[in-house]
Amino acid sequence: MAEYPPSLEKLLHELEKLPGIGPRTAQRLAFHLLKQPAAVSQTLANTLVEARTKLHPCKDCFNLTEKDLCHICTMSTRDRTALLAVEDPSDVVAFERTHEYHGLYHVLGGTLSPLEGRGPQDLTLDALVARVKGNKNFKELIVATDPTVEGDSTALYIQQLLKGVPVKVTRLARGMPSGGDVEYADESTLLKALEGRREI
Amino acid sequence: MAEYPPSLEKLLHELEKLPGIGPRTAQRLAFHLLKQPAAVSQTLANTLVEARTKLHPCKDCFNLTEKDLCHICTMSTRDRTALLAVEDPSDVVAFERTHEYHGLYHVLGGTLSPLEGRGPQDLTLDALVARVKGNKNFKELIVATDPTVEGDSTALYIQQLLKGVPVKVTRLARGMPSGGDVEYADESTLLKALEGRREI
Repeated sequence: MAEYPPSLEKLLHELEKLPGIGPRTAQRLAFHLLKQPAAVSQTLANTLVEARTKLHPCKDCFNLTEKDLCHICTMSTRDRTALLAVEDPSDVVAFERTHEYHGLYHVLGGTLSPLEGRGPQDLTLDALVARVKGNKNFKELIVATDPTVEGDSTALYIQQLLKGVPVKVTRLARGMPSGGDVEYADESTLLKALEGRREI
Repeated sequence: MAEYPPSLEKLLHELEKLPGIGPRTAQRLAFHLLKQPAAVSQTLANTLVEARTKLHPCKDCFNLTEKDLCHICTMSTRDRTALLAVEDPSDVVAFERTHEYHGLYHVLGGTLSPLEGRGPQDLTLDALVARVKGNKNFKELIVATDPTVEGDSTALYIQQLLKGVPVKVTRLARGMPSGGDVEYADESTLLKALEGRREI
């Protein structure tokens, strides 16, 4: 029966929608922000809207960027013979953290999931195929979707799509624990998985 | 060397300022929000600014409210002989959750802390004294500041301020927390529990 003022109730409701934020955490965050000067809330609100407005997918790889092409696609030092397909932009960050992969990326936007109603048209698969077919430089495509049923079938689907195209399609080694999440894997696990990748 | 676009960097920076939000959690929240439709970020930003703008301290008890008086102060069913002083509005919520306290509250706005530069003028102590002195209904003031050095000395300070005023000033009981473990309780808690022991 703890009754909150309407605006606080609404704020708690919005905060609780965030992943990993339960009622207690939402309450702690809300009361913290309400205790701070109004400028703190205003700044947080502004950066949130600004980020969501300015950021959009890179024209080539669909990573998040404020420009046409992301900072990785425009880097002259990247190895343009290797392409690494990931589910989300956060996975790009995870691989960059290993400091060992120097090729390009392709952000798929998730995995195929009939259960959740995500088919090939919901991912950037057409763009991936066009990109690989249209660029003779690519020697290898590493499919780094999560080691889950959806991730595996998406990898297999990509391999089918590229049959006959002269590019080696590989999959991350199962150094990764099944059911895990690329985004949260530590650097060492990701490195082992990169090193042990195998042709599909 | 994970390089983010500037607006994402700024968002992560703001999120990491929140209590209990580290770099990984900030990243998870940011990428989650960026994946959602723009309306989600906009709504969160709006509710945040709206809450911070609309909410202010209750005229009587300094709890958060959108009106002059908070919903507890205006409730006709509350016991107007009991006053419970807490550090923050979130503590009011905690006591309301017990469904057993039916009196009024007074939100102090923190504790006295010479180390952090918080003196009596930074709390609502003047208002508390005026409130207790100006209202002959109050029979008891329960000081429910945290059981810490600062909370204890704030309670003692309040007791001094109200010397000679015909109101009973009490402090929350000290002892073992429900569901606690004697083996892991710290010395101070065990001492207080011993001191305050009661006949079964």
